Amino acid sequence: MRPLLTDLYELTMGNVYLKSGVDGWSAFEMSVRPHPHRNYLVSVGVLEAAREITQLRFGKEEIDYLRSLGKFSEEFLEYLQNFRFRGDIYAIPDGRIFFAKEPVMVVETTRIEGQILETMLLNRVAYQINSASKGARIYYAAEGRTLLEFGARRAADSESAVRIARATYVAGWSGTSNLEAGRLYGIPVYGTMAHAFVQTYRTEFEAFLEFAKAYPDSAIFLVDTYDTFAGIETAIEVINHLKGKLRLKGIRIDSGDLVELSRYARRRLKEAGLDDVIIVLSGDLNEWKIREIVREGEADAFGVGSEVAIPPDKPVLGVIYKLVEDEGGFKHKFSKGKVVIGGSKRLYRHYGSDGRILKDVLVHRDEENDGEPITVQVVKNGEYIYSEDSLQKARERFLRDFSTLPPEYYDLDEGVEPPVEYSPKLRLR
Amino acid sequence: MRPLLTDLYELTMGNVYLKSGVDGWSAFEMSVRPHPHRNYLVSVGVLEAAREITQLRFGKEEIDYLRSLGKFSEEFLEYLQNFRFRGDIYAIPDGRIFFAKEPVMVVETTRIEGQILETMLLNRVAYQINSASKGARIYYAAEGRTLLEFGARRAADSESAVRIARATYVAGWSGTSNLEAGRLYGIPVYGTMAHAFVQTYRTEFEAFLEFAKAYPDSAIFLVDTYDTFAGIETAIEVINHLKGKLRLKGIRIDSGDLVELSRYARRRLKEAGLDDVIIVLSGDLNEWKIREIVREGEADAFGVGSEVAIPPDKPVLGVIYKLVEDEGGFKHKFSKGKVVIGGSKRLYRHYGSDGRILKDVLVHRDEENDGEPITVQVVKNGEYIYSEDSLQKARERFLRDFSTLPPEYYDLDEGVEPPVEYSPKLRLR
Repeated sequence: MRPLLTDLYELTMGNVYLKSGVDGWSAFEMSVRPHPHRNYLVSVGVLEAAREITQLRFGKEEIDYLRSLGKFSEEFLEYLQNFRFRGDIYAIPDGRIFFAKEPVMVVETTRIEGQILETMLLNRVAYQINSASKGARIYYAAEGRTLLEFGARRAADSESAVRIARATYVAGWSGTSNLEAGRLYGIPVYGTMAHAFVQTYRTEFEAFLEFAKAYPDSAIFLVDTYDTFAGIETAIEVINHLKGKLRLKGIRIDSGDLVELSRYARRRLKEAGLDDVIIVLSGDLNEWKIREIVREGEADAFGVGSEVAIPPDKPVLGVIYKLVEDEGGFKHKFSKGKVVIGGSKRLYRHYGSDGRILKDVLVHRDEENDGEPITVQVVKNGEYIYSEDSLQKARERFLRDFSTLPPEYYDLDEGVEPPVEYSPKLRLR
Repeated sequence: MRPLLTDLYELTMGNVYLKSGVDGWSAFEMSVRPHPHRNYLVSVGVLEAAREITQLRFGKEEIDYLRSLGKFSEEFLEYLQNFRFRGDIYAIPDGRIFFAKEPVMVVETTRIEGQILETMLLNRVAYQINSASKGARIYYAAEGRTLLEFGARRAADSESAVRIARATYVAGWSGTSNLEAGRLYGIPVYGTMAHAFVQTYRTEFEAFLEFAKAYPDSAIFLVDTYDTFAGIETAIEVINHLKGKLRLKGIRIDSGDLVELSRYARRRLKEAGLDDVIIVLSGDLNEWKIREIVREGEADAFGVGSEVAIPPDKPVLGVIYKLVEDEGGFKHKFSKGKVVIGGSKRLYRHYGSDGRILKDVLVHRDEENDGEPITVQVVKNGEYIYSEDSLQKARERFLRDFSTLPPEYYDLDEGVEPPVEYSPKLRLR
């Protein structure tokens, strides 16, 4: 985490707090505002963020730059130079499903520390939660078909490209085309071929053949460079030509009416006796198009890029980070439509006899509850203490939680109220 | 630039090209598909991308990972190990305005080199062009009022947070709240205070007063934490209390009906004899809301975050990178609605007697034209040669080009055809 990846005001406020002697215990809470296309949310990135906070340091270059602005007392610059996060962090671990208004992170520490972290935490976490939550909707729509993340070229930059691969993998997807994500996180990597490849050879037949000879285990032919109908025939020809030598074979269609074309392709493949050739579809796919194809078309796998790189139905998730409690008590906030209920909270989950979520209960930090604890302590006195922190664990948590959603929450269009209940102590009086 | 920030297929295709002995001269072109809210585009990021391509290397860790996938010949891994970009790059330099369909980058090199760069170039450049182009629309709407970029918390991650600060600064904005962008690029940094700051003190008056004493040069009071009308009065009180001691003073309103509230605030400030107090507005602002406030409200400055971090009207710009020519001739491509005209191109601009753009002419690389050259060579035989590469130069280019747009291109709603003409040689036959 870069120490200056923050808004100037976080530090000028810190400077004033130090000067005023205001630096008592404070609780800040990160949560997500409701959105009808985000009936449920997937936590991703909070563990890494918590871990990195414990390592956050301001180096000489950063301090020198801040001094050059002429806006900070030497006392405050010294404070930053010695900065070590000393507080506690509670979080909903990566992979868990949660809902709007619930505290995905609670930072309990001094006022200045809590304030300084605001911008960098939001920057680090909000986008990943949005990608994973969008990815979960697509996972639902695909009904068990393979999902591949192709969004690297559409992501804002290299960091977020790697993060969408990770976020969608947590959300049940099978892999990514992104090699850097594969290298860093061991996520399975997949790929087919591009139109430029087909254009490189004299004929489509030659292009497919050259590729198949090099990749008999993953010979997926892109059939829509020239004419999709003819491309399907060329793929059949090449597969027949190499009969028995291809261990995995398939076609990819990236444009046109994917329902019609995929049905046509399946029929032609069956007529040719090629029942084991897989059909991969791509091209601006989202949960609604995938649902339509699953119902009316033919597909074994989907490649999805733009729509998880930056989800157009909700490009920026409304994630907030608010002061909710300090030594003076609860801090409520009421702007129009933007109520923040004060009190540093913990989340417990209750299940019905069918194994599905009955309700989530928010209680004050001092209260107990007999539900399953969803917020867990991950940082204690500045030290990272969470042990279940791996990508595979996160994916397992997602897959388990995904099956506990009450059916109405899966709906792609209808917004449903979060199943959240507040303890009497937290209710507004 | 990270060498594996790419799709697997870019390298598997390279592997097959090498095996087939297909690695001749090829030209790839990056361009943007038309969109009605992007009548003109601002180039940002292409110079940095070109520079970094010349430094791109595959290290041992990357090669080891690729070997572990079992998908590449030792010959190809050796090719990557020795990879140095040896080709030429032509680009429309940062800050220049261009239009859909025009080649913002042309990469002329060997087939494998050109193919390998596709994903990382799109990842590096597309987002920045979108931010700058959106920023230019907002610059237009603000009619000379100060624009501050507040998007760090809404950006996808730390890299893109810095990039939106840079992109909007190129597009005529005055500064950013992002300290890392300030440190790295010398962009002026600005900030006010957050609601948590006001909540930290017993009264709003005390909060404003503490801040003003520490920052007499930039005392901007956030007046909407509790009640905006009362907050305006508190600001007036504090300013009067410190009479003469504040060199810059202002109020910020971040919620509610900004037109009404800003008019009310101006009236109250005038009644209190405080004509020099500036009004800063923020809160989900975009070009349409800013136009309305400029016409009907009162504002000296705007803070804009989400809408430049990820523009909701066009979250992902349709940027493509296509093979357009090789030793075999021009490479056209016709998918439905997605025509790519072959031939490696150069762009020249012609101006009318009013100094505004008359037309842009695309010619083949072998052709001459008497217009102003817009595409310039930035990399020659693998070496970066462009000398006008600084943020200030880019901003100057933008400000100059912005005044040369024909009036209809500024329209915020109506899509206008790009003023692009093709030389006879490039016209489809």
